[in-house]
Amino acid sequence: MTESQERWERRTDTPLAVASLLFLTGYAVRVLAPGLSDTWRLLCTAVILASWAFFAVDYAVQLRLSGQGLRFLRSHWLDTLVLLLPLLRPLRIVRRYEAVRRRRARPRLSLYARVIVYAGLTVGLLGFTAALTVYHVEHGAPGASIRTFGDAVWWTCATLATVGYGDVTPVTGLGRLTAVGVMACGLGLLGAATGSFSSWLIQTFAWEDEKRPPES
Amino acid sequence: MTESQERWERRTDTPLAVASLLFLTGYAVRVLAPGLSDTWRLLCTAVILASWAFFAVDYAVQLRLSGQGLRFLRSHWLDTLVLLLPLLRPLRIVRRYEAVRRRRARPRLSLYARVIVYAGLTVGLLGFTAALTVYHVEHGAPGASIRTFGDAVWWTCATLATVGYGDVTPVTGLGRLTAVGVMACGLGLLGAATGSFSSWLIQTFAWEDEKRPPES
Amino acid sequence: MTESQERWERRTDTPLAVASLLFLTGYAVRVLAPGLSDTWRLLCTAVILASWAFFAVDYAVQLRLSGQGLRFLRSHWLDTLVLLLPLLRPLRIVRRYEAVRRRRARPRLSLYARVIVYAGLTVGLLGFTAALTVYHVEHGAPGASIRTFGDAVWWTCATLATVGYGDVTPVTGLGRLTAVGVMACGLGLLGAATGSFSSWLIQTFAWEDEKRPPES
Amino acid sequence: MTESQERWERRTDTPLAVASLLFLTGYAVRVLAPGLSDTWRLLCTAVILASWAFFAVDYAVQLRLSGQGLRFLRSHWLDTLVLLLPLLRPLRIVRRYEAVRRRRARPRLSLYARVIVYAGLTVGLLGFTAALTVYHVEHGAPGASIRTFGDAVWWTCATLATVGYGDVTPVTGLGRLTAVGVMACGLGLLGAATGSFSSWLIQTFAWEDEKRPPES
Repeated sequence: MTESQERWERRTDTPLAVASLLFLTGYAVRVLAPGLSDTWRLLCTAVILASWAFFAVDYAVQLRLSGQGLRFLRSHWLDTLVLLLPLLRPLRIVRRYEAVRRRRARPRLSLYARVIVYAGLTVGLLGFTAALTVYHVEHGAPGASIRTFGDAVWWTCATLATVGYGDVTPVTGLGRLTAVGVMACGLGLLGAATGSFSSWLIQTFAWEDEKRPPES
Repeated sequence: MTESQERWERRTDTPLAVASLLFLTGYAVRVLAPGLSDTWRLLCTAVILASWAFFAVDYAVQLRLSGQGLRFLRSHWLDTLVLLLPLLRPLRIVRRYEAVRRRRARPRLSLYARVIVYAGLTVGLLGFTAALTVYHVEHGAPGASIRTFGDAVWWTCATLATVGYGDVTPVTGLGRLTAVGVMACGLGLLGAATGSFSSWLIQTFAWEDEKRPPES
Repeated sequence: MTESQERWERRTDTPLAVASLLFLTGYAVRVLAPGLSDTWRLLCTAVILASWAFFAVDYAVQLRLSGQGLRFLRSHWLDTLVLLLPLLRPLRIVRRYEAVRRRRARPRLSLYARVIVYAGLTVGLLGFTAALTVYHVEHGAPGASIRTFGDAVWWTCATLATVGYGDVTPVTGLGRLTAVGVMACGLGLLGAATGSFSSWLIQTFAWEDEKRPPES
Repeated sequence: MTESQERWERRTDTPLAVASLLFLTGYAVRVLAPGLSDTWRLLCTAVILASWAFFAVDYAVQLRLSGQGLRFLRSHWLDTLVLLLPLLRPLRIVRRYEAVRRRRARPRLSLYARVIVYAGLTVGLLGFTAALTVYHVEHGAPGASIRTFGDAVWWTCATLATVGYGDVTPVTGLGRLTAVGVMACGLGLLGAATGSFSSWLIQTFAWEDEKRPPES
């Protein structure tokens, strides 16, 4: 990474985080408050568009500074994806959380604590975003079972835990596409929960073996 | 931990365990026996209130003895949570079980046995409490599918195993909130089952490798 | 274990395995072939009762030979359980499979292969038994959704994989009790699948680390 | 493996991969485009039959070259299974992917990346094939809930993630048999996700322990 790239990243870090939260907030307000006055609705749209424009400018500058041309699209495929799905943008805040902790000289969390905090923040943000999207797409569809935002949150929780009652399910194509993403996230969550417990057990065993005096 | 704190904990340990069981019993009787005479109903309410008052006194004394002020709320967030949700209180009995075993000089269980016993006790207590709460909240709600306590237990089992048939599901907000807690508990249970098996396999491998005479 | 106990076990091992298969077969025929002639039905009942009587005799002899009295009920709780639920008896065949392999001087399977073979045999036998029981209990119940044996097998598979569609579900108390057992078995199966893969990955890593020449 | 066997495998490797893709494509076109003109339908059938004939010839030659006679059926049970279920054939492409990477002198992927790429390719191919089969078998059945290919894909995703909503489920015997295969695949996917995360955690721990300077 060249020096100019680093300088750009350092400078845009906080504004981007703020913009991604504004984007999510604007989208949430538009979706959840249908009876909004025209002024407020326009404001929300403006915030959404401005945030997204900021993301696009950031992407363009990074593309330019990298000097990689079209190869940048593949080497930074995650950034490309997030540009197209800006609702996933707030996930970068998870990374910022750690940076802030380090700057304040707080002791770094242990690996387990970090896995739990990361998984918790990621699942919380992704879950909220997924519930918003599914509610937005579904609640007006004919034959929909997800009619209120509460239904959407309930459905998201049941999917993330891979329980899947099926009392409310998405029926539109876009809603089901989002659902597949939520399922993949749920599999990851299961993997994190299981993997953490498993490695904790193995660690504890190794520690008990060392502590014990040799038998012979 | 100061000396006075330790003395307080040692003295209140058994009474608190008894009180938490009384609380659960009182709640269970009130919920499961609707045709109770007024005398019994009053008695149950008295037991519930008295137990909770005892928890509140214990919390206040600990808050005072710690000398931490408001920081105590965060450093003892689990105790704070349990004060607000006293139905979770009986989980402390899991800890007492181990203490009693140690006092009677019973050989300490192996790590696997402890994980299984802990997971079993925790899941049993949490499952019973969750089934009670969900039954309490749901069985009178309009359009409810959980109508008997048997339904609630059946739903709890299907959720804990992350199977989630969806033949009976909570429909009220409070019931669904409880359900999310049960799902989280189910994820943990899956993690414990998987992690235990995984580390057992790895242990067995390591043991077989050591047992075998070196090949060269 | 005393010498007389060992001799008894060695002698009854094969007859008990045969009897447990006869028990399962007799039960399966009775449940799955409702239009049986009276002669055949009587024969099945006779086979079931004779097998169970054999199990009871074996249990009584072992209880006697052990000289433990009532403590035997707890120290051999698995045998006690199997006496009361003789449908679980064929699971002992899994143990016999290994014994037969050893006697024929076949090379012992690797740990992974054994885990897979054991899990496969156990799940197959338990699944068949559970499907039989659930079909037996449910197919005549009012409002039942499990009406054919195919439905019962389909339900068992969906439960063992913790998928749980909920298109067919048990509605009677006994059926749901069996279901809880199947769920527990499904959790164990998940644990075995995940644990095996996890420890295989870790083994492969360790092996690749050793194989690689030291870098410095 | 004799020299003639190796030569045969080397020569038929690419044609077999092409044939297996042609088979899948031909089947997909036949199933998904019902309003096809007779010419195209005939062409598809021809492609399917020719590919399968090629598989049969390959199997016969391998059986002959091995000189094992009927024992070949058991020692190559996977090849025997794939001959009977040629839709599973494209899975061999997963193996070819690695071979191609190696030939082009691309650096071998790390174990985690390989597990993820393999699991992804396998799940993608199996999922597509399963969705095709289930749609083919179900969409005309009386009382079917899987009516469009979109429904079949949605059902496959929900099953692979072991979520299992149950809003659409197979009702025919063949559809349910396929479903059991998808469930087994889902269990394996869960195992891969969990196992990878678990071993990654353990690796990271070991690495952090080594990096840290000894405390005494």
